[in-house]
Amino acid sequence: MIEDLVERLRLLRTPGIGPVTFRQLIMRFGTPANALAAVPDLARRGGGKAPPLRTRDDAEREIARVDRLGGRWLAVGQGLYPRLLAELEDAPPLLIARGNLNLLDRQAVAIVGARNASAAACRFARGLAHDLGQHELVVVSGLARGIDSAAHDGALASGTIGVIAGGIDVFYPPENEERQTALYEQGLVLAEMPPGTEPRARHFPYRNRIIAGMSSGTVVVEAAPRSGSLITARLAAEAGREVMAVPGSPLDPRAQGCNQLIRDGATLVQNAADVIEAIRPFENRVRAVSTTYDQPQEQMNGDDALTLVEELLGPSPVPVDEIIRLSGASSGAVQMALLELDLAGRLDRHAGNKVSLRPA
Amino acid sequence: MIEDLVERLRLLRTPGIGPVTFRQLIMRFGTPANALAAVPDLARRGGGKAPPLRTRDDAEREIARVDRLGGRWLAVGQGLYPRLLAELEDAPPLLIARGNLNLLDRQAVAIVGARNASAAACRFARGLAHDLGQHELVVVSGLARGIDSAAHDGALASGTIGVIAGGIDVFYPPENEERQTALYEQGLVLAEMPPGTEPRARHFPYRNRIIAGMSSGTVVVEAAPRSGSLITARLAAEAGREVMAVPGSPLDPRAQGCNQLIRDGATLVQNAADVIEAIRPFENRVRAVSTTYDQPQEQMNGDDALTLVEELLGPSPVPVDEIIRLSGASSGAVQMALLELDLAGRLDRHAGNKVSLRPA
Repeated sequence: MIEDLVERLRLLRTPGIGPVTFRQLIMRFGTPANALAAVPDLARRGGGKAPPLRTRDDAEREIARVDRLGGRWLAVGQGLYPRLLAELEDAPPLLIARGNLNLLDRQAVAIVGARNASAAACRFARGLAHDLGQHELVVVSGLARGIDSAAHDGALASGTIGVIAGGIDVFYPPENEERQTALYEQGLVLAEMPPGTEPRARHFPYRNRIIAGMSSGTVVVEAAPRSGSLITARLAAEAGREVMAVPGSPLDPRAQGCNQLIRDGATLVQNAADVIEAIRPFENRVRAVSTTYDQPQEQMNGDDALTLVEELLGPSPVPVDEIIRLSGASSGAVQMALLELDLAGRLDRHAGNKVSLRPA
Repeated sequence: MIEDLVERLRLLRTPGIGPVTFRQLIMRFGTPANALAAVPDLARRGGGKAPPLRTRDDAEREIARVDRLGGRWLAVGQGLYPRLLAELEDAPPLLIARGNLNLLDRQAVAIVGARNASAAACRFARGLAHDLGQHELVVVSGLARGIDSAAHDGALASGTIGVIAGGIDVFYPPENEERQTALYEQGLVLAEMPPGTEPRARHFPYRNRIIAGMSSGTVVVEAAPRSGSLITARLAAEAGREVMAVPGSPLDPRAQGCNQLIRDGATLVQNAADVIEAIRPFENRVRAVSTTYDQPQEQMNGDDALTLVEELLGPSPVPVDEIIRLSGASSGAVQMALLELDLAGRLDRHAGNKVSLRPA
């Protein structure tokens, strides 16, 4: 198990290997060790040079550091790793957790919203989180200011999970140190990035996919148009989860994001009962067996597929399904060719399972 | 034409003849005069005594009175009678109008809401009505306090229609006399009841069906649960029209009715553009030719159907369609039998096209 973790971590922390590539490699080669061994050849076949693999020492150092911090590792598809999160195409291959791991075994609902929310909205979020907690639901949020903080506070006694954009040992925003510490002790904190990572703007959408992905549904409370909360809502919708929003008066500019979400099809919720009703269909999926991951795929006929796929790709993103259809090759062969191009640093992956050739 | 009006009015004002019975009679006998002549026999066949028909004098007196008040008559399916309203099963056979009749030739939207609405909601309603008016839409409401008054005020310059529960010459609520007078002069007022009628509680749902029925859609602004505005919304939905609601914070009890409407499927609207988008599908139906009304139906085989229908009826309301199916008789024959029972005072008609035998 620890050996498997070392190999997983080496693979995951290798530059250029994101969650999707990681998944593809494991699906193709069965184990992290086999995948690691194959990466250099794959990259060369894709027309690039081999990426600098992370060493065993690097991985062991990170594992020891997490250990000292009181963190635990969660590997996708194994143990307490959230089942719904594992369904995402780009599920984090590894998560670092600190706190009460039992919370991962309960159905989760995300509550997110504006950092500069009104006092009334924060009070509402706190009350909603509290009431959901009374129904055995775990409240997930992002430990940000405003609505996130209120949601964690409301559910602190019953169970709440904070997903952070930086390392498991980094407090952000700084004034939330006390709250984050409370979550280590009474709740749970999850991080995808290595310890010590200071969160940057690009980390937040990744963090948001975890919040949306591990939850049966996401409730948005007061969100400005084009805000991070709406990104979380979109990610929840893309993952097939329930998107819920708390309405507000059209005269209140802070209500615009939520009202628009409802116009776009989100469920209007006014209280915990509304939320519970909306997420009921997910009840059984939370504890259902995880989706197929770590399943080696059929063998495929390399070179021809690679040439074919390369010819079909250009600088504009196209759906992988279209490449498969146009190439006439098997899905496995196309995925393999894409993997080779990816590892060679010649592929860009985009939302909606689209890919493009990276401009030279 | 005036002769036709006299007969229509005699028939309509005869006790026990409501809009549905009126429609059935005209469909069966072609003209009001023929229907009037048939009523006594029909009632006797139904097992009751003939209702006291209104006299020619009664009708002419009412017509003269409306004339003195500056009112005009609108007969269903004719002239400027609102086309969408004529589609209702229980469309008012006659309406009395006072004001600018040209407003009837434009697409209409209803704005309704609480009498004790917040100042903010009234301001919103006034602004929305104004903005809809800038897009050639006529704003329909009920001349009540609160939202109704605000809606009329906002659209006074561009075009607004007030539908009142009492007679065309009765000011209700009294403090709205000035506003109602302004509508006589710059807008339009519609009444179903005879002049001089003081509005009573039972009149308001009838008034609401006219508001909902003549409009492409109904916008509800702040409504308490179980309020008249929600009845109007339900009637709009039953008539297949667009139901729209303005959301509010769950912390504001006055927003509960609208938020629940949205949960139940109403379109969330925040401004005139949202309303215009929602009612666009009705644009062409407003000026389309009216539905079939005043079309005499096929002849039918009286006595057997009457006996059969009577046996099938009981004190519990059943759908007319079910009576038709169970009886095996033609739809026309069943309708005729129901008409006879109705005129004999032995039938009750219920919402959803259901009927029951009146307990003796």
